[in-house]
Amino acid sequence: MTRTDRDNPAGTLSKMDMTTTKPPCVALLSSVLDMQYLVPAFRAAAPGLDLRVGPDLGALDDIDAAVCWAPPPGLLAAMPKLRLVQSLGAGIDHLRSDPDLPPGPTVCRIVDTAMAGTMTAYVTWAVIQHQRSMGAYLASAAAGQWQEQPIVAPSRHRVGIAGLGTLGIASARALQAVGYAVRGWSRSPKADLPEGVQAFHGQDGLDAFLAGCDALVCLLPLTAQTQGFLCADLFARLPRGAHLINVGRGSHLVEADLLRALDDGTLGAATLDAFQHEPLPSGHPFWRHPRINVTPHVAARTDPATIARQTLDNLAQLRRGQRPAVAVDPAQGY
Amino acid sequence: MTRTDRDNPAGTLSKMDMTTTKPPCVALLSSVLDMQYLVPAFRAAAPGLDLRVGPDLGALDDIDAAVCWAPPPGLLAAMPKLRLVQSLGAGIDHLRSDPDLPPGPTVCRIVDTAMAGTMTAYVTWAVIQHQRSMGAYLASAAAGQWQEQPIVAPSRHRVGIAGLGTLGIASARALQAVGYAVRGWSRSPKADLPEGVQAFHGQDGLDAFLAGCDALVCLLPLTAQTQGFLCADLFARLPRGAHLINVGRGSHLVEADLLRALDDGTLGAATLDAFQHEPLPSGHPFWRHPRINVTPHVAARTDPATIARQTLDNLAQLRRGQRPAVAVDPAQGY
Ligand SMILES: NC(=O)c1ccc[n+]([C@@H]2O[C@H](COP(=O)([O-])OP(=O)(O)OC[C@H]3O[C@@H](n4cnc5c(N)ncnc54)[C@H](OP(=O)(O)O)[C@@H]3O)[C@@H](O)[C@H]2O)c1
Ligand SMILES: NC(=O)c1ccc[n+]([C@@H]2O[C@H](COP(=O)([O-])OP(=O)(O)OC[C@H]3O[C@@H](n4cnc5c(N)ncnc54)[C@H](OP(=O)(O)O)[C@@H]3O)[C@@H](O)[C@H]2O)c1
Repeated sequence: MTRTDRDNPAGTLSKMDMTTTKPPCVALLSSVLDMQYLVPAFRAAAPGLDLRVGPDLGALDDIDAAVCWAPPPGLLAAMPKLRLVQSLGAGIDHLRSDPDLPPGPTVCRIVDTAMAGTMTAYVTWAVIQHQRSMGAYLASAAAGQWQEQPIVAPSRHRVGIAGLGTLGIASARALQAVGYAVRGWSRSPKADLPEGVQAFHGQDGLDAFLAGCDALVCLLPLTAQTQGFLCADLFARLPRGAHLINVGRGSHLVEADLLRALDDGTLGAATLDAFQHEPLPSGHPFWRHPRINVTPHVAARTDPATIARQTLDNLAQLRRGQRPAVAVDPAQGY
Repeated sequence: MTRTDRDNPAGTLSKMDMTTTKPPCVALLSSVLDMQYLVPAFRAAAPGLDLRVGPDLGALDDIDAAVCWAPPPGLLAAMPKLRLVQSLGAGIDHLRSDPDLPPGPTVCRIVDTAMAGTMTAYVTWAVIQHQRSMGAYLASAAAGQWQEQPIVAPSRHRVGIAGLGTLGIASARALQAVGYAVRGWSRSPKADLPEGVQAFHGQDGLDAFLAGCDALVCLLPLTAQTQGFLCADLFARLPRGAHLINVGRGSHLVEADLLRALDDGTLGAATLDAFQHEPLPSGHPFWRHPRINVTPHVAARTDPATIARQTLDNLAQLRRGQRPAVAVDPAQGY
């Protein structure tokens, strides 16, 4: 694919497909989200597109691509011509909502550098907010009180990133530039980490990694291996009073273990952006816990325009018989 | 000076001076701070030191070095053997508290990379806190509400740093790594800025610089030229609704102009760490202003051990007839 195609895949589609054959048919479907918010971006990217929004998808045998977030069970398997299952996000764990995911279509995820920026800003904020006692200053100020807090240099604070993918590496780089002592952990060894970031990998490297995390950031994908990763056993291997930041998925965390670890001082604080049940139910103990900061799954969000562009780009590549670089292996889980 | 000396200047002093001549005499003095907090660090760095803490300084003609924050008028001029006036911080504006600053002694400031880390963390936090609506999320969470806010990618937010010294450059580098669009302004042109940081300088470059600051960070020293820099005239040259972050000195800001600019929407928010009168008086309108975050002059703080080490290091260099690299020209003001 040429650079121009990449920049304007919709243009490519309209020339290549729409005038010569039927326009491509893209379905937007989710069992939990209202996908209407994506419609303007797809219309803008490819005016001639045959766009269907769930639940009323019309004839299923028209559909070439399905843009999904937690798709309803069985629906994708009923689309005989489906070539592309496009995840709405960086992760594909939500596709497990459909136990009958058909093996034929290529599964693609979104890789979005602007999203890396929003995630990096969130993670950097979460680390500083706790390490520099910013919450305490704002609370004093709200009470009209000039109240200093101990100041510890970032170089004395060790931040560990579990998951060194697109998002983990961007966060590592930023935290390093602020001055934190950064380490990271991945499945396979990493060669090209930002200079000064200490690298660990695999189950064998996990203990040594955790022992030096004053703050631990979870940026793992949710897979069979990482489900429940953030549990009592892991918390016990962190330095006492560590700060847990979960920007992965709610199911990475064993919620009851977190509450216990905060109560007994194993952990000092938690910043959580993802939850087992979203929206976090009212009355959930996380909401008003004095040492938990809750945010409503906003650490990163992909621009609808980017989703539309990447979907059309991936579909165009598949129609030409090419495998998109952002295709993932559902068996590996990320 | 050899590397070993640098790492252990106190050791140098004890060998070089303390056994052969009288131990050096260092006075700690301030008209506003209790300098006792520095004593343990100086004792640890050089046990044999003749250390004097104001107001009872003993015989003034013993004193070789004075570590100062806003020194009382006339006192330094009464120390005939004074070689070193060591500022307690990165700035030297507070020395103006003494109109009779003697011309003989060398004035040194603290240059501290760990301090750059604490400042960088503060500045990065302040930018993100506002740009990513973190205060709004925490307020919703305190009310038990799952409430999303618009998400704008950091790459679409332009952050300007006024003052590209040790601290300004460290902040520029970190904000750039997070993903912000960073620009900077200094007195003289800068060659070696972090890649991608847009550079402006001098009065001629100021308008173009300000026109692209969605957030403006003041990291200037306080001099005759920069006093009152943050005023109505400057605010009017920023994009409407910009975020002002003052981590310089309180006298950079014209307080009444800020309140007016927030009221009429010229500015959208302000984060302030330094004030004309510190502690900020109770009842001051900044305290409970809904769009001002106040922190109690904590953006950066130099470790007492670093102050002791650099003071002894500077004094040892002066005794050998060398001019320390951190010496400043009081006439230039920084
Ligand atoms: N809260 C939000 O708003 C939000 C938004 C977007 C994404 N996310 C989360 O962030 C995750 C990461 O996104 P990404 O784009 O950076 O993913 P990615 O590029 O796929 O990277 C995943 C990283 O995790 C590592 N990993 C996977 N399984 C592992 C295991 N069993 N043990 C150790 N390391 C393992 C991988 O190791 P290798 O490098 O060795 O393969 C890789 O470094 C997503 O999956 C999603 O859960 C959250
Ligand atoms: N709030 C806190 O806790 C805290 C703590 C420490 C320091 N500070 C403040 O931070 C300031 C900066 O510290 P630093 O160590 O980075 O200082 P520095 O290394 O002396 O750098 C000062 C910078 O300001 C620029 N500058 C000076 N006068 C200027 C003018 N008239 N117009 C345009 N640019 C001008 C200089 O330009 P050139 O490069 O061209 O000379 C230089 O880039 C300190 O002076 C102090 O006020 C605050």
